[in-house]
Amino acid sequence: MEFTARQICDLLNGKLEGREDIKISRLSKIEEGAEGSLTFLANPKYESFIYTTKASLVIVSDSFIPEKKLEPAIIRVENPYQSFVHLLEIYNQIRNDRKGIEEMSSISPDLVAGEGCYVGAFVYIGSNVTLGKNVKIYPHSFVGDNVSIGDNTILFSGVRVYSDCKIGSDCTLHSGTIIGADGFGFTPSNNNQYKKVAQIGNVIIEDFVEIGANTTIDRATLGSTILRKGVKLDNLIQIAHNVEIGENTVIAAQTGVAGSTKIGRDCMIGGQVGIVGHIEIADRVKIAAQSGIGTSITTPGEIVQGSPAFGIGDYKRTYVVFRKLPELEKRIKELEQTITDLRQIPS
Amino acid sequence: MEFTARQICDLLNGKLEGREDIKISRLSKIEEGAEGSLTFLANPKYESFIYTTKASLVIVSDSFIPEKKLEPAIIRVENPYQSFVHLLEIYNQIRNDRKGIEEMSSISPDLVAGEGCYVGAFVYIGSNVTLGKNVKIYPHSFVGDNVSIGDNTILFSGVRVYSDCKIGSDCTLHSGTIIGADGFGFTPSNNNQYKKVAQIGNVIIEDFVEIGANTTIDRATLGSTILRKGVKLDNLIQIAHNVEIGENTVIAAQTGVAGSTKIGRDCMIGGQVGIVGHIEIADRVKIAAQSGIGTSITTPGEIVQGSPAFGIGDYKRTYVVFRKLPELEKRIKELEQTITDLRQIPS
Amino acid sequence: MEFTARQICDLLNGKLEGREDIKISRLSKIEEGAEGSLTFLANPKYESFIYTTKASLVIVSDSFIPEKKLEPAIIRVENPYQSFVHLLEIYNQIRNDRKGIEEMSSISPDLVAGEGCYVGAFVYIGSNVTLGKNVKIYPHSFVGDNVSIGDNTILFSGVRVYSDCKIGSDCTLHSGTIIGADGFGFTPSNNNQYKKVAQIGNVIIEDFVEIGANTTIDRATLGSTILRKGVKLDNLIQIAHNVEIGENTVIAAQTGVAGSTKIGRDCMIGGQVGIVGHIEIADRVKIAAQSGIGTSITTPGEIVQGSPAFGIGDYKRTYVVFRKLPELEKRIKELEQTITDLRQIPS
Repeated sequence: MEFTARQICDLLNGKLEGREDIKISRLSKIEEGAEGSLTFLANPKYESFIYTTKASLVIVSDSFIPEKKLEPAIIRVENPYQSFVHLLEIYNQIRNDRKGIEEMSSISPDLVAGEGCYVGAFVYIGSNVTLGKNVKIYPHSFVGDNVSIGDNTILFSGVRVYSDCKIGSDCTLHSGTIIGADGFGFTPSNNNQYKKVAQIGNVIIEDFVEIGANTTIDRATLGSTILRKGVKLDNLIQIAHNVEIGENTVIAAQTGVAGSTKIGRDCMIGGQVGIVGHIEIADRVKIAAQSGIGTSITTPGEIVQGSPAFGIGDYKRTYVVFRKLPELEKRIKELEQTITDLRQIPS
Repeated sequence: MEFTARQICDLLNGKLEGREDIKISRLSKIEEGAEGSLTFLANPKYESFIYTTKASLVIVSDSFIPEKKLEPAIIRVENPYQSFVHLLEIYNQIRNDRKGIEEMSSISPDLVAGEGCYVGAFVYIGSNVTLGKNVKIYPHSFVGDNVSIGDNTILFSGVRVYSDCKIGSDCTLHSGTIIGADGFGFTPSNNNQYKKVAQIGNVIIEDFVEIGANTTIDRATLGSTILRKGVKLDNLIQIAHNVEIGENTVIAAQTGVAGSTKIGRDCMIGGQVGIVGHIEIADRVKIAAQSGIGTSITTPGEIVQGSPAFGIGDYKRTYVVFRKLPELEKRIKELEQTITDLRQIPS
Repeated sequence: MEFTARQICDLLNGKLEGREDIKISRLSKIEEGAEGSLTFLANPKYESFIYTTKASLVIVSDSFIPEKKLEPAIIRVENPYQSFVHLLEIYNQIRNDRKGIEEMSSISPDLVAGEGCYVGAFVYIGSNVTLGKNVKIYPHSFVGDNVSIGDNTILFSGVRVYSDCKIGSDCTLHSGTIIGADGFGFTPSNNNQYKKVAQIGNVIIEDFVEIGANTTIDRATLGSTILRKGVKLDNLIQIAHNVEIGENTVIAAQTGVAGSTKIGRDCMIGGQVGIVGHIEIADRVKIAAQSGIGTSITTPGEIVQGSPAFGIGDYKRTYVVFRKLPELEKRIKELEQTITDLRQIPS
């Protein structure tokens, strides 16, 4: 992709100073600019870089007054950061704008698909599948029987959606994510062996959900494992069967949620957190990274840490004393000695 | 799939009350019933739902006496829960009953396969591979050279089995599971660099093993990494090279076991547990979630928690005091002050 | 693969004692030898096995003097372990020596590839990709647009490399590894919803890097996520956007590093460690398994443990006292009682 400074300026409704025909082929940080790159100056802390950057074009604020001569061309806008983010999005849209069905895909003839869909090579689509408009399915993804996927949703290469699962609109699923594998359900049988409990529910993912790479969302035993609208999951997360996660809750990488737990909306959960099964987490709860949650959290907005977790302020105070434990033990020994001495003083 | 109430009743050897020709197309929980769904009533706590459920058919106990008029048809059986689980299994078997070889698979001509196998599109099977009867290999799976897979084993979409590994009968491997990637073995060489130790052993998985999505089982350096009969592994678990896991041991999601460790039989290991390399865990040991195991556990049946872990009762008692540490420190300070005061009292 | 004892002896420049025409088809540990297997004796502790092993050929030291009659043939070399490792490597090279392009791959016509490359079935290669010499890409791997891969690098089955990423020479990427999925970047928008920040940077992997199965390395928001020369990552690791990992740093399984953190060279990081974003870890730092790193570590060579982590010696001493907390609380109670008693003594 290559654009001229003029084209970019027009996209941003800005004011261009410098050569209109400069060719821009990439975006960069201001300190890593190179010929053909476009960058921005928003934070005054970085102003010195604009006099040394090798970038060809810099987005600056309307009010920016250079102290020295500038090498790169500039585009003046009201909010340089917002304008730059807007360009990132356009760049990304163009990059991911794929259409049509590539050769060597295996698609059931009963597929119902909206306009503008992309199905890459080696994609497998089972029977009775429905795709909305502009759905993009990258190579090597697997879509099982009876799956539906809403408008504008993207499945990157190697996503697996088991049969009967429902995925909403405007979702992004990254490579290696597995939707709808069997929940981990066994009942003890004779001789310490386990008998599998068939897992015949599904997974329901609502609109505007993003799921990172190699994350796993198990299907429900019966009923549904549910990710509500706007949920954001990072990489390598485990969501067990029959879990429900409320709207706009955000979870960082490598966290695990055990079966049938219900998490509220607008929660923020750090990385490597473990949450046991069959509990409830209230709305707006925040959980620090590496915490372990063993019981329900019923107060909305509570912030916890530790394994098992409790209030984050208490945890931090406790940990300060924890680090002094050898000293505390010494003080107790000294007290014991002093007391022994005191008692030996003849009264 | 659609069945009549009569067909289901005959499968269960039950007694039908209500219309024989009702059509059933799905299974549901009693509180989520809808037209065309079948559910069950086992727990008396849920009895009220049978008078309000929209399900078309309910499996109930022989001894059930309704207190009000019932809308749905019922089937009477001895044990409603067992009968329902039996239906789940039949449903699952029908759903996964695939046969034959789909187009666009890449299969070495020397494949030896039993009756009733399924090989999906885009499956790759290397040379000198043996499949038992009724093996199901879903699309996008990779089976390397010299692999053998026993009867009735299922590989879901995107499983990877590296060369020389052996998988038993009646196993289920979920999507994204990697069997036989190289163990993590390096020796220091000059300048802080590392030289790889070639990993030429394999992985042996015995019968009745289930492995969750995106779990990784590394091949041995020499010899074999072994999962014994009946082992059940959840999602996103890491099993390093030369590990051995005993019969019927169950491990929850995101746990990791480092190289050459040997775990006994009938153990239950929680999620996010870390177990160091080169140790032994006795039979029937239970390990609480998020624990860290740094030394061998030699007492069969021991239950541990913590990182590093010790007896679970002691851990829980210790954690109760841990949470009071700021208060304890205050009490020590007060004792010190009191002692100082006492010593200043003229005798 | 089958070799005679004479062929192996010539490879190792050793001295053969016994039949030259014995056929060797596998390598084994000395205690697991079988007909047709080759093993070695390096550690005198294992000497007794050489008189009972069923292996057909044993590599021994030049100076080895048998105490009894030997069944297997032997090859005398200076360093039996080194010679055996050398054979492991040759075995591995032969096993992985694949060349040419298999049918049913999808390769953009503008691919530039060096000599000796292998591209397996169902591999997808986007436009403007460059492969060095002897690159091996196993079935089902995905290589996005504008990717470059250096000489001798191996991508095992099902690796995904998103567009614009750069992979150096002599690297090994195991199955299920995801390079360049979007970083986890969102900004709050109205109503507690989040708006995605487009992630248009890339991942740069330098030479001699090894990455385990199902590990995820996210692309930078802008700029690059970087793994320097010689980095070794185990399975199921999460590396977030804009992270940089220094030369020869080694990280064990299931560890996660959050965004923009910079890790020094020659570090050793245990399994299941969590490292927060936006910090720096000095060179040669060692971090114990399951630790949590919440602030920068500025002293090179420091060794830490705990969550949050501090000096490993202090941590171990602290944990010893932690385990005695219930006893310590009891001692404090006794002190309080004694003081109360003392104060009640009439003076």
